[in-house]
Amino acid sequence: MGKVTALRCRDCTTEFPPTVKFVCDQCFGALDTVYNYDEIRLTPSSLNGREKSLWRYFDLLPVKDPDRIVNLSAGFNPLRRCDTLAKELGLKHLYVKDDTINPTYSFKDRPSSVAVSKALEFGFKAVGCASTGNLAAALAAHAAKAGLDCYVFIPSDIEANKIVQTAVFGAKIVRVNGTYDDVNRLVTQAADEYGIGIVNVTLRPYYVEGSKTVAFEVAEQLGWEVPDHVIVPLASGALLCAICKGFEELERVGLIDGTDVKVTGVQPQGCSPIVDAFKQGRDGISPVEYPDTVAKSLAIGDPSDGIYTLRNIRKYRGFAEAVSNREIIDSVRLLAETEGIFSEPTGGVVLGALKRLVEAGRISSDERVVCLITGSGLKAPEALTGSLPEPITVEPRLQTLAPIMKR
Amino acid sequence: MGKVTALRCRDCTTEFPPTVKFVCDQCFGALDTVYNYDEIRLTPSSLNGREKSLWRYFDLLPVKDPDRIVNLSAGFNPLRRCDTLAKELGLKHLYVKDDTINPTYSFKDRPSSVAVSKALEFGFKAVGCASTGNLAAALAAHAAKAGLDCYVFIPSDIEANKIVQTAVFGAKIVRVNGTYDDVNRLVTQAADEYGIGIVNVTLRPYYVEGSKTVAFEVAEQLGWEVPDHVIVPLASGALLCAICKGFEELERVGLIDGTDVKVTGVQPQGCSPIVDAFKQGRDGISPVEYPDTVAKSLAIGDPSDGIYTLRNIRKYRGFAEAVSNREIIDSVRLLAETEGIFSEPTGGVVLGALKRLVEAGRISSDERVVCLITGSGLKAPEALTGSLPEPITVEPRLQTLAPIMKR
Repeated sequence: MGKVTALRCRDCTTEFPPTVKFVCDQCFGALDTVYNYDEIRLTPSSLNGREKSLWRYFDLLPVKDPDRIVNLSAGFNPLRRCDTLAKELGLKHLYVKDDTINPTYSFKDRPSSVAVSKALEFGFKAVGCASTGNLAAALAAHAAKAGLDCYVFIPSDIEANKIVQTAVFGAKIVRVNGTYDDVNRLVTQAADEYGIGIVNVTLRPYYVEGSKTVAFEVAEQLGWEVPDHVIVPLASGALLCAICKGFEELERVGLIDGTDVKVTGVQPQGCSPIVDAFKQGRDGISPVEYPDTVAKSLAIGDPSDGIYTLRNIRKYRGFAEAVSNREIIDSVRLLAETEGIFSEPTGGVVLGALKRLVEAGRISSDERVVCLITGSGLKAPEALTGSLPEPITVEPRLQTLAPIMKR
Repeated sequence: MGKVTALRCRDCTTEFPPTVKFVCDQCFGALDTVYNYDEIRLTPSSLNGREKSLWRYFDLLPVKDPDRIVNLSAGFNPLRRCDTLAKELGLKHLYVKDDTINPTYSFKDRPSSVAVSKALEFGFKAVGCASTGNLAAALAAHAAKAGLDCYVFIPSDIEANKIVQTAVFGAKIVRVNGTYDDVNRLVTQAADEYGIGIVNVTLRPYYVEGSKTVAFEVAEQLGWEVPDHVIVPLASGALLCAICKGFEELERVGLIDGTDVKVTGVQPQGCSPIVDAFKQGRDGISPVEYPDTVAKSLAIGDPSDGIYTLRNIRKYRGFAEAVSNREIIDSVRLLAETEGIFSEPTGGVVLGALKRLVEAGRISSDERVVCLITGSGLKAPEALTGSLPEPITVEPRLQTLAPIMKR
């Protein structure tokens, strides 16, 4: 028997064989990959000599053949202790999990590496995705490495850099006149019609397994402990659910003693359907029809993992918070100026929300807090237009510098 | 006695104490950092448990206090075996040293990390640089982390992304109406006048030590062997000289058995003063007054390490080659489409030149070749304008996809 035993429905727990399948036949719930946990032997020392990428956790990833993984070295990025930023925010122990250092500079390299490997295993000749931009580039790069055709579907307002960074890998880019949710519906139909593996739809139970490695790494980098609090940005909600699954699996195989960690989810005010539901005590999501935010990576109005995300935030005693464009940009600049890390607006959502929660007394100064910074600012530089000082232009003579330089 | 014993002139070998000094009083030659090599005990196994950044080689870096290094985890990036690309080029053993995965996505994070650490040690309150763009962002990030003021001097035509990526870290950007060489002259004067540590001028002997770690890593990643051939892009020439020094030091401390490696230097045709001198058999450089190339990172018309670079290429039995803008862009796309790596145009210079050298029979198919890919394509996306297919725009209906998708 392989290490993956089944796909299990999150709602009714019905199990299915691990094939290309993403919704429960019984209740239409989402499916999760289940492993033969009792057979998995992982210890801190067994991991010591392994490669510094997410594939060090091969035992808990849904790919059979280690020789056929598509590996651009995504993952095992620094967990940076940020003392200067911590002081600014009134915290004592603040860490940033820095996924801006990935092959295509976002955390989406993680699920892409896993999903493309799985697509090869299933025999697909082409892969595709619906994307707000980061997945586009990540999938295109991994498909190029694998020699697979790649179709990327994006809404019409994606940042220019993300398009160049996708097209260069030879992916075919289909820009859809509509929102991300329109794109998502279209690719779901295309998957059936054209037999391509849509990584974040038809291959979703495998795809999201890449994202859980963030939790594995955070725990390992803290010496096999969970932090007190993790702040996670929410688009579809899949990342937050994957983080929770990651901690639970570490406990299941004995690498950590418990999952006593708070998990908080954050969104921009222009697209906060999960946060709104949480604050209003609802179990269901009211979709946002027209998202409007500088954090385009998070502009998903009808989040597919919304209800599961709500459940996890409650289960893990976290909070939900939304912030304005102004707070987002200010937080991006604060992170850069204090710690030398340039995040895309999504990271500003995380830090802006953290600031609010500390100020409101919901996060105390001695909690060990981990912020997930999931993508690079270089992917969305236009977000900062008008908010950074302009360069000063001078003639090449020493006298021109007098008004500029400090003595 | 500290591990750094002296600064030694490359020309007349006069030695000076290791202070803030960058030219020889006797002959105006460049100065190199010299270590107390006999006292340095480094073995493959002593390196095993060390951190995965350039600071694993602390023993051979010119900073005294390991607790005061400014570390954003630059270095120890993948040495990627590129079999698909190798086949395209007619090679059997091709590797890419991938410095696109660095904190600010270029190899300049290496010398910046070392130089900012050294600036702290010397007590500077501010650092600065002359930059064609990559150093700007790298220095600004490390200065932010260190809490130092930062002044970045750039020529007027630098790519927009590189400016955003520098300004966000809080650096003051001074755009100089002129070429890089004008900028370089201005900062040299400013260093004296304002007492700031100009990392690539007044702190240069320490700064370049960061770059030699590329050689350390290549050798370590090949199991403590040198490759047959390394292809290095040339701007000032400092990187190539640092690579040679790196291999020599590894031999000196006994980590490799010899330095039997060919070292080739490459430039774009619009700015190829070192390549021209090599091909014409000259010992001196005729500066290029107005560089004109899509590879802006290499647009240095009067390379400060030009003569030393020529000597090293000859000593290491390498070649020098220059390529056109067309070859550069084609090579950037080839690398992306075959290996999933998106390089800035500089990487296209490296691969375009490699292609020429293989076709001319100067590099044979069974040589083990390492190409240095020194910066990310996301830093200069405008270089690809007009050469990538445009996205196809559709309405969100399945029928619109028929002309686009393969069956």
